[in-house]
Amino acid sequence: MGCTVAIQYGIIGLSRLDTKMISKLDLDAHSPVPLYRQLYDHFRASIESGRLENGSRLPATRELAGQLGLNRTTVASAYELLESEGFLTGQVGRGSFVRSSRAPRQNELDWNTLLGPTQARTPAYAGQNPATISFATSRPSEDLFPLDAFRLTCAEVLSGRHLPSVLQLGSPGGYEPLRRYLLDRAAEQGLCEAGGELMVTSGCQQAFDLIARALLRPGDKVAVEDPVYPGLKNLFLNAGVELLGIPVGADGMDTERLERVLGNNRTKLIVVTPNFQNPTGATMPLAARRATLRLAREHGAVLVETDIYGELMYSGEAIPSIRQLDETGSTLLLRSFSKVAFPGLRVGWIMGPRPLISRCCEIKQITDLHTDQLSQAVLLRFAESGRLEEHRRAIVSAGAERLAATLAACGEFLPRGTQFTRPRGGMNVWVRLHEPLDAGELLPRAQRENVTYLPGRYFTVSKHEPGGMRLSFAGLTPASIREGIRTLGVVFSSELENTRSRGMEPALAMV
Amino acid sequence: MGCTVAIQYGIIGLSRLDTKMISKLDLDAHSPVPLYRQLYDHFRASIESGRLENGSRLPATRELAGQLGLNRTTVASAYELLESEGFLTGQVGRGSFVRSSRAPRQNELDWNTLLGPTQARTPAYAGQNPATISFATSRPSEDLFPLDAFRLTCAEVLSGRHLPSVLQLGSPGGYEPLRRYLLDRAAEQGLCEAGGELMVTSGCQQAFDLIARALLRPGDKVAVEDPVYPGLKNLFLNAGVELLGIPVGADGMDTERLERVLGNNRTKLIVVTPNFQNPTGATMPLAARRATLRLAREHGAVLVETDIYGELMYSGEAIPSIRQLDETGSTLLLRSFSKVAFPGLRVGWIMGPRPLISRCCEIKQITDLHTDQLSQAVLLRFAESGRLEEHRRAIVSAGAERLAATLAACGEFLPRGTQFTRPRGGMNVWVRLHEPLDAGELLPRAQRENVTYLPGRYFTVSKHEPGGMRLSFAGLTPASIREGIRTLGVVFSSELENTRSRGMEPALAMV
Repeated sequence: MGCTVAIQYGIIGLSRLDTKMISKLDLDAHSPVPLYRQLYDHFRASIESGRLENGSRLPATRELAGQLGLNRTTVASAYELLESEGFLTGQVGRGSFVRSSRAPRQNELDWNTLLGPTQARTPAYAGQNPATISFATSRPSEDLFPLDAFRLTCAEVLSGRHLPSVLQLGSPGGYEPLRRYLLDRAAEQGLCEAGGELMVTSGCQQAFDLIARALLRPGDKVAVEDPVYPGLKNLFLNAGVELLGIPVGADGMDTERLERVLGNNRTKLIVVTPNFQNPTGATMPLAARRATLRLAREHGAVLVETDIYGELMYSGEAIPSIRQLDETGSTLLLRSFSKVAFPGLRVGWIMGPRPLISRCCEIKQITDLHTDQLSQAVLLRFAESGRLEEHRRAIVSAGAERLAATLAACGEFLPRGTQFTRPRGGMNVWVRLHEPLDAGELLPRAQRENVTYLPGRYFTVSKHEPGGMRLSFAGLTPASIREGIRTLGVVFSSELENTRSRGMEPALAMV
Repeated sequence: MGCTVAIQYGIIGLSRLDTKMISKLDLDAHSPVPLYRQLYDHFRASIESGRLENGSRLPATRELAGQLGLNRTTVASAYELLESEGFLTGQVGRGSFVRSSRAPRQNELDWNTLLGPTQARTPAYAGQNPATISFATSRPSEDLFPLDAFRLTCAEVLSGRHLPSVLQLGSPGGYEPLRRYLLDRAAEQGLCEAGGELMVTSGCQQAFDLIARALLRPGDKVAVEDPVYPGLKNLFLNAGVELLGIPVGADGMDTERLERVLGNNRTKLIVVTPNFQNPTGATMPLAARRATLRLAREHGAVLVETDIYGELMYSGEAIPSIRQLDETGSTLLLRSFSKVAFPGLRVGWIMGPRPLISRCCEIKQITDLHTDQLSQAVLLRFAESGRLEEHRRAIVSAGAERLAATLAACGEFLPRGTQFTRPRGGMNVWVRLHEPLDAGELLPRAQRENVTYLPGRYFTVSKHEPGGMRLSFAGLTPASIREGIRTLGVVFSSELENTRSRGMEPALAMV
């Protein structure tokens, strides 16, 4: 098998593709995954696995398009994406060459077979121009970090008498003074009643991972928002569970659809983000939260509530969390310092019923022993001293401005007919481009203009929206936001004109 | 099922055990797991799952022993262990009561069914007397932490121009300046040739976890040292793989046995610790390293080399690592700052072939996004500044003294016939008590005398040694080591005399 593939690629390298090769490529014109993306996936996997070797020349776009019966723009989009992610390098007048530093050796283990296929669909940011305006990452701005307050906090921890125990081996449940502090605050908010427990995790991503490892087996069904945070989608796909995507509207997860899905599927877990959902920014009203809780209870599903953006509220009133509404205390609630304070310090926490938290602590022990204690001690001091709350107020004020700049620029510059959400907090706005615009196909073009974002394919679960894309605004100044969205407007509008003028392009028959 | 069990425990609570209960307990006199331990496991699981409720009274030891046909000492040992771990509390004249704060509620999810049985066999240290001399943890001493050097290092990082990027979201592969530094050092040592890669992990435990997730599927076979580090055993058991225990002798893993086992079992992975293995302290000579590499290659098994103790060498000459001997670069090498510097900062790294590291980075992204960056930046500065090396020299000097104190005290105080290893480095000595002494049964008694250790059951894989136990000496002063081992000598010797004097005790028939 390995050998057949190598010969096959030798042929591509020499740009002599035959019909046998075409069937091996296995492109599916009826798939929700666009053709350019299928082609990209195929080449990327071949490069990463080493089947396509460093320095191999790829066929010219026109040639490959002809042989595969595709539009040349489809092939060009795949090549552009590969190039933008550092997998190809173009040499003027010579063509496109594979960039990978892998050199095969004798007696080497067959890593392709050992590792099996990857489930990962994570964007690569390699080689990004520093001048690029990036809407791609949902994170705070470095410019807003309160560095002096942080330094002061560290100095206090470093001069404190607990320093030796901070540096010593810790506990899977978390650095006990931080755990106590979080438990006390949770108790004040009615979040950790008798029978409830709290553990510290290495950020919220690890909380998801621990819960998945504690509860899910391959083939289990999990209901998630659609579109959803890619880190959650990738985690669950990797765990071999079946994802049931519940559409997200202006009021968050559609609870009527959730009811139908739960009625038709024995669902083990529901994950919901009631406040400023990533990527849509949607907020669930109180009634929808109650309905979700009732449905989870009726169908015996475990309910996980993610609330990492809740403290970044720019307008309106706070709504009780589902865990606050849940008198049985069964709902798991996930929070984190990463969005409000410093993402580079990986500290989040889970509140939930004791048996689940106890099992998650066992799994945490085999996963990474415990979360880094220096950051736990520093964040505890940052919170206790009131500096966290002071900083939160500052970034809420900045976030509100940035959100306003984003919504204003979307209205002003994006082509007529573009839809976008209007969040009340958080870091993200979801944009739906008008047909026939494809946010994934247009990304390389936007990147050439030094603007980047994440297209919908990273977020969508059951229903792919080619026009969907996320604009993460919190890390950018209002001026950059305006400039970036203006550029996107130009790229999208010009594509719209091109599409209209070129109409249907004749493609060779698929053989 | 849940209901049946609850009624059954109601009966225990009232201390009216019937024969039906005995069969439910499912004790196996022929199991390598001692009876007291089976009893302990049963009660612990019942308490943790909430089946045995807070405040329930357990039957008196004499009564339960009579009903189960066991020696009273067996039941007493189980109760003592439960009490030492905080699961029971004794009240003079009233009996033993379950300590758990779990209160059942209506409408609660059935967490026992949802979570399934636990695989964890991790010791609980709850409620340990601060006066206890603990040989239980393989970690450095807090008293040796160079706090001033650490504070200076942090001050340098905090005043550096990279601070904002340290606090910002990072990369799954690690904080790039640290990754570069480690790569450069690896290149100097011939450890990361072309085709090799390096990624930072949240300590060495996470390195194991990422590798297991990348490579192993349930039912796969993995060869490990026997006895082995419990975190590795628990991780692999949790992943559903079959462990093949290869005995460890004075020269480390027995390569002749390894050859036979590989010949009879299609083995996916071999994990080996050539330097100062945990728990035995054994070092593999060069020939054994070469043999292991050759065997792995011949049988197409992936070889993982753990080397977290290698820099703590107290005598003799350094021997090349297997990865240095491996011209194909296929061996994975795991290292960490945790044993040499500060265990509370969770930073380790993996060196290995690019396809494996690339997959581990993908998995890291869904596991916890990336390792904490403050600790990565601080440890980088600590290493670059030369302070790490200075500190290493100090703890090597202290470690050599502590090892010498341990070996001297073992020779002087432990009962005649006790065997113990004589490591050249690291943090652990493995002791084999003479028959019929059982290190697990004797632990509660040692703990009453304020000395604790880890008995063999946490470490053994295929072959249980009741007399096996680990003494982790690095965290204790020579004086404490001497006092602790003297106490252990008294406990063990008195048990030996008791056994001889009491001979066989008549036990009731098992019905």
